[in-house]
Amino acid sequence: MIIDSVDFFYLSIPQVLDIGDGSQDALLVRIRAGGFEGWGECEASPLTSIASYVCPMSHSACKPLKHSLEGMGISSVRDIKRISDLVHENSLDLLQADHTLSGIDIALWDILGKMLDEPVYRLLGYKKAYPKLPYASQLFGESPEATFEKAKKATAAGYKAVKFGWGPFGKTGLKDDIAQLDAAREGLGENAYLMIDAGTAWKVDVPAAKKRLASLNKINAYWLEEPFINAALEPYKKLSKATPRVPLAGGEGCNNYVQAQSMIKHAGLQFIQIDAGRIGGITIAKEVADLAKSSKITYVNHTFTSHLALSASLQVYAGIEKDFISEYPVELSSLAQEMSRTKIIPDKNGLIHVPESPGLGISVDTASLKKYLVDVEIKINGKQLYYTPEF
Amino acid sequence: MIIDSVDFFYLSIPQVLDIGDGSQDALLVRIRAGGFEGWGECEASPLTSIASYVCPMSHSACKPLKHSLEGMGISSVRDIKRISDLVHENSLDLLQADHTLSGIDIALWDILGKMLDEPVYRLLGYKKAYPKLPYASQLFGESPEATFEKAKKATAAGYKAVKFGWGPFGKTGLKDDIAQLDAAREGLGENAYLMIDAGTAWKVDVPAAKKRLASLNKINAYWLEEPFINAALEPYKKLSKATPRVPLAGGEGCNNYVQAQSMIKHAGLQFIQIDAGRIGGITIAKEVADLAKSSKITYVNHTFTSHLALSASLQVYAGIEKDFISEYPVELSSLAQEMSRTKIIPDKNGLIHVPESPGLGISVDTASLKKYLVDVEIKINGKQLYYTPEF
Repeated sequence: MIIDSVDFFYLSIPQVLDIGDGSQDALLVRIRAGGFEGWGECEASPLTSIASYVCPMSHSACKPLKHSLEGMGISSVRDIKRISDLVHENSLDLLQADHTLSGIDIALWDILGKMLDEPVYRLLGYKKAYPKLPYASQLFGESPEATFEKAKKATAAGYKAVKFGWGPFGKTGLKDDIAQLDAAREGLGENAYLMIDAGTAWKVDVPAAKKRLASLNKINAYWLEEPFINAALEPYKKLSKATPRVPLAGGEGCNNYVQAQSMIKHAGLQFIQIDAGRIGGITIAKEVADLAKSSKITYVNHTFTSHLALSASLQVYAGIEKDFISEYPVELSSLAQEMSRTKIIPDKNGLIHVPESPGLGISVDTASLKKYLVDVEIKINGKQLYYTPEF
Repeated sequence: MIIDSVDFFYLSIPQVLDIGDGSQDALLVRIRAGGFEGWGECEASPLTSIASYVCPMSHSACKPLKHSLEGMGISSVRDIKRISDLVHENSLDLLQADHTLSGIDIALWDILGKMLDEPVYRLLGYKKAYPKLPYASQLFGESPEATFEKAKKATAAGYKAVKFGWGPFGKTGLKDDIAQLDAAREGLGENAYLMIDAGTAWKVDVPAAKKRLASLNKINAYWLEEPFINAALEPYKKLSKATPRVPLAGGEGCNNYVQAQSMIKHAGLQFIQIDAGRIGGITIAKEVADLAKSSKITYVNHTFTSHLALSASLQVYAGIEKDFISEYPVELSSLAQEMSRTKIIPDKNGLIHVPESPGLGISVDTASLKKYLVDVEIKINGKQLYYTPEF
């Protein structure tokens, strides 16, 4: 079926704060074809991504994404792969393209699932979806006391795994970091999984990261995430060999397959974390999940936004039983909460399940989202190139 | 001195063709401070880059570039480094940021050079600028005959080094590729340096690339450039070890330091090619040049646009005598030709020289460029976020 439309919706809470909460705005993608409708989300700057979809061609390898979508058909998995390949070729030199493609690709999988009446994970070749253990993913408190309270609250809510990240961690000195780590473990008790996310705090500074290893080891951190900027292979590798050993996690910043491949092969990671909303969508994320499996590295989703994004990210490795840990955002903005009528909620055993409905199995709540819609208008030489479409 | 303004000018020839000529449009950056004016150029999608400069903040690590520029001062090299660091931190999750930063960083070096009355290469720590041997960089002809003619013409024009790339090469089969390679060498004669640019034609397909090695060896190719997509470390590494040995060049797609570092360490390259208009400007390009030097790999500029971009890219390694080869675009669009009154022209020995004037030493011809100006208007919720400024 020929793609009828690819529409972008820039959504935002009224006042975006200068904090590490990526759910404060969103870029939704809606694709329509043959009476079906698919939805996806880019984990990306909304305005910049929209511009990359509609911008004029610069040269043969720097075309807007629409060039690879308009007039294309969608009725099989092969069609999605073809569009993904085309975008990579036509928009090779358009840096933002991978982030924009991500939401498009997710929407294509959603619509294809609805057309074929199958959940996405089955279209990906998995026979069965295994439940995952969600870790409550949240920001560090502003003080160790605040982190302690957050940890207590997460435990009381039934979470057996919790991650703290960003906020003041890595920014105000070793002593403060140690206090934060201790507070997190104290609040959680001995048995919970505790992950720590440094949010690239030490850039490429291996000694700075090393100074935290003893404390991370003491609190039995399940992993240290993103001590360094994405693709900093040498620093990651060095830290992975330092003592005491703390397992490293990273990869959320990867925006294509070969970057993730390098992180898997050369960074000494034990966990590769992929955001389907950044790496080019479900198509590329699944290729990384396959590589992680054959490389004996654990695949984990990176998701800090809506349950639409969560479903997309879970489909990718739903059928890999051994990779049972899953990032589960628990500090969603009202926008991300209201994005879908369907929610992925932990069951009585504290596990989450990929929806068994067709596509991503997430019903987008356009009525609730209208109040968050940001009108965008882009004109080139007086001619309107883009205007926010009807929701 | 406080930065008074950072202005973007989207320029384009009237009809951009679907060919590999990146000089058909341009994004110029003008920075004003304390009565001085600096110019830079992004090798990037103009509209998308402008959007990344003005877009609303998404979260603490996804801020528009203007956030790191407004109110900042510029009076020393340290100030440029500070702004570069800030952009990397504040716009970590904004994929397009590196391309946009590139033009800004180049303009900052230009204005600083004018303020301090020094050419940029001196501010970079080089005592002297060595002349470079320019290779005439051009697209393959549509047929082997056309390539032969182009090669003849380049030789007649005095070029001792020529590169052919893109066009039909790598797209229509082995036999056609061999005919193109033979025609290029035949047209040039035995003694000229001949570089071949596959323009990522084989993506990650090592066997496809291997099939061309014998022919490349036969025509004594000085290097094979970009057989694969950027950052495809494993394919590059494998091809670098295959026989017959053909030196590999790559790296133009790198948009930050650590990507270039990975290419230098893990891809088996003999030549690292950096586009200052993509990697984050002169600041980051210089860091790569330093690494290349200590890694005993040859640094080469990647430049396919204006003489402003050419000067910026040459400053970066002007003081490295042994790295004497330089990409020199010879098929510039009228836009790129008219961009500057100053031109970098081969001397009687066929060598080119970095301008010895302050900054980049290139006088931008705004009067001639007015006819290429593309008016851009971006509105968010009815409020104008960007409008093309006065030239």
